[in-house]
Amino acid sequence: MKRYLILAEGFSHDPHYGKTMRGVVRYRPHPVVAILDSKRAGETYEGIPIVASVADALPGEPTTALVGVAVAGGRLPPEWRGILRSAIEVGLDVEAGMHEFLADDPEFADLAAKQGVELRDVRRPPADLSVPTGANLTHGAQVVLTVGSDCAIGKKTVALELDREARRRGLRSVFVPTGQTGIMIAGWGIAVDAVVADFLAGAAERLVVEGAERGDLLWVEGQGSLLHPQFSGVTLGLYHGSAPHVLVLCHAAGSTEIEGCPGHSIPPLPELVELHERSALPARPAKVAAVALNTSRLGDDESLQAIEAAERETGLPTDDPVRFSPVRLVDAVLDRLPAQDQLEAPGIRAG
Amino acid sequence: MKRYLILAEGFSHDPHYGKTMRGVVRYRPHPVVAILDSKRAGETYEGIPIVASVADALPGEPTTALVGVAVAGGRLPPEWRGILRSAIEVGLDVEAGMHEFLADDPEFADLAAKQGVELRDVRRPPADLSVPTGANLTHGAQVVLTVGSDCAIGKKTVALELDREARRRGLRSVFVPTGQTGIMIAGWGIAVDAVVADFLAGAAERLVVEGAERGDLLWVEGQGSLLHPQFSGVTLGLYHGSAPHVLVLCHAAGSTEIEGCPGHSIPPLPELVELHERSALPARPAKVAAVALNTSRLGDDESLQAIEAAERETGLPTDDPVRFSPVRLVDAVLDRLPAQDQLEAPGIRAG
Repeated sequence: MKRYLILAEGFSHDPHYGKTMRGVVRYRPHPVVAILDSKRAGETYEGIPIVASVADALPGEPTTALVGVAVAGGRLPPEWRGILRSAIEVGLDVEAGMHEFLADDPEFADLAAKQGVELRDVRRPPADLSVPTGANLTHGAQVVLTVGSDCAIGKKTVALELDREARRRGLRSVFVPTGQTGIMIAGWGIAVDAVVADFLAGAAERLVVEGAERGDLLWVEGQGSLLHPQFSGVTLGLYHGSAPHVLVLCHAAGSTEIEGCPGHSIPPLPELVELHERSALPARPAKVAAVALNTSRLGDDESLQAIEAAERETGLPTDDPVRFSPVRLVDAVLDRLPAQDQLEAPGIRAG
Repeated sequence: MKRYLILAEGFSHDPHYGKTMRGVVRYRPHPVVAILDSKRAGETYEGIPIVASVADALPGEPTTALVGVAVAGGRLPPEWRGILRSAIEVGLDVEAGMHEFLADDPEFADLAAKQGVELRDVRRPPADLSVPTGANLTHGAQVVLTVGSDCAIGKKTVALELDREARRRGLRSVFVPTGQTGIMIAGWGIAVDAVVADFLAGAAERLVVEGAERGDLLWVEGQGSLLHPQFSGVTLGLYHGSAPHVLVLCHAAGSTEIEGCPGHSIPPLPELVELHERSALPARPAKVAAVALNTSRLGDDESLQAIEAAERETGLPTDDPVRFSPVRLVDAVLDRLPAQDQLEAPGIRAG
């Protein structure tokens, strides 16, 4: 049984860079005994104590230190090396989702071998990836992809919430993880942003094919945005490789510019809907079935107004599945999904 | 002084998988003394003798064996190991552009060390890539990207031909290589399809920033297609990361389906123009200035008819720069490029 100490030094307050911590705390795949962030030691986050050091977390009996922050580009800030050393030295396994693999770092690898602990790099891609084979169009499951106007606005959370609601209804529904936090939450998956670029769609195909073995209705965690100046390639590769039948468009209410990228504007929602539908493969047209609005920066009244406005602008069912309810969004998706005997792509023949 | 033996076993006749061989033969960065393809030994290709074995090529005094075929996914067919061993054993350096790096293969690495020859993996990405910084919008050069309806239809060739014509006119024009063959021809570049997916746009940014140090007018070699079910992620990452001012749309006359992907149709040219313009970053809108039509499968009369038809359909200057002339295409691009003082993106301020 795993018990997590989440390492979030300097970022436990940050919704963007601390999104791995937030996701793991929210969905708690395993108990979280403490969060490490020396600048906020003594406070709590969602009822979990924040501590100043690995030693201070030991009374909670953690088994595993989890790197809870995602830095742009995925590389480890130098001040973190000491924290990771102390986690390994006290006998904790370490799970991380950076582009720089802990197990490939000679210092950490030696120390881990000496202490008999495991270093798990969840972003390390499978060694045998290749290009898609076409199996993404013929596996027989219904596929929904969450897409969005920016990074870190809730594409993963929306997929998790809608999957949960679908399972509540008795459907054989599966969350399909495509990034580090999703993998930590669900215990399987591939971080598609870490694969060789040529194999992006191949990795996405493998995920939906595996998802189709696990269930009938797949909620694929989206990545980035088609208009993100840094990550759009990952977004389109995941889109075409996962070959969704239906899209859910995620947006942070009120955002008009890509976070961290001044001058890169976010177009109005109807344009985003049209861009995403326009970008589908002709062999697998996909429509946006609903809008998931992240209203976490708004008050209650403003949130309802923002949802109504988005619904009016796009003509699509809109809700905040975290603040309010996933019910209408799941209804809208199920309405738009093709029937089981209509799932295959036009012009594509199975096997 | 390099002298190439091109290894093309089984593929010297194949315009798709043999495209590295064809590019290197066409632009001849170094003399090519022979092509190895046992099934066509005794024939010639563009005046170059085709031989059955490495030994048969030795009278031409090659210095370097170049892997001239690109297999899907970039992996080495097993039967090739023997050919590569014999090249190394007779003392040739080897250049290759596969995803599997020759220098990381213990057998080849040992043999190369013993023979004192070099193994050059041109697809190996720089170790220090990251996400774009915004320098792709402020470097001060004019950027043209070739895009297209499919792989292997001439996006690299069009960039090379238009660059040559621009240099003929006295412009400080530069071909910017983004794939293995382009790198072999130009002697620099990054194979963007081989980088970690998160760093796609960052690699493209680095290429245009380096290009801007080499000249004022950059012709960036496009990759894949926005509608290619296998490689579209690379295409969009390269598009947004290279942040072109103007696009040249490449298409193989008469093609209506992605090669090797039955059921994946290619939409009509006006739709392709619109899709590409629609997919630009709002901060760097790009228009298609011209259509480069690959008419290599048509007769002379049909070619002229196809060019006229494409011009009528799209309203854009169209030509086959290989069969006929790059002049009108370069004219059209120069007409559409923003003036030197208008190069920066709206809303982006130079560093």
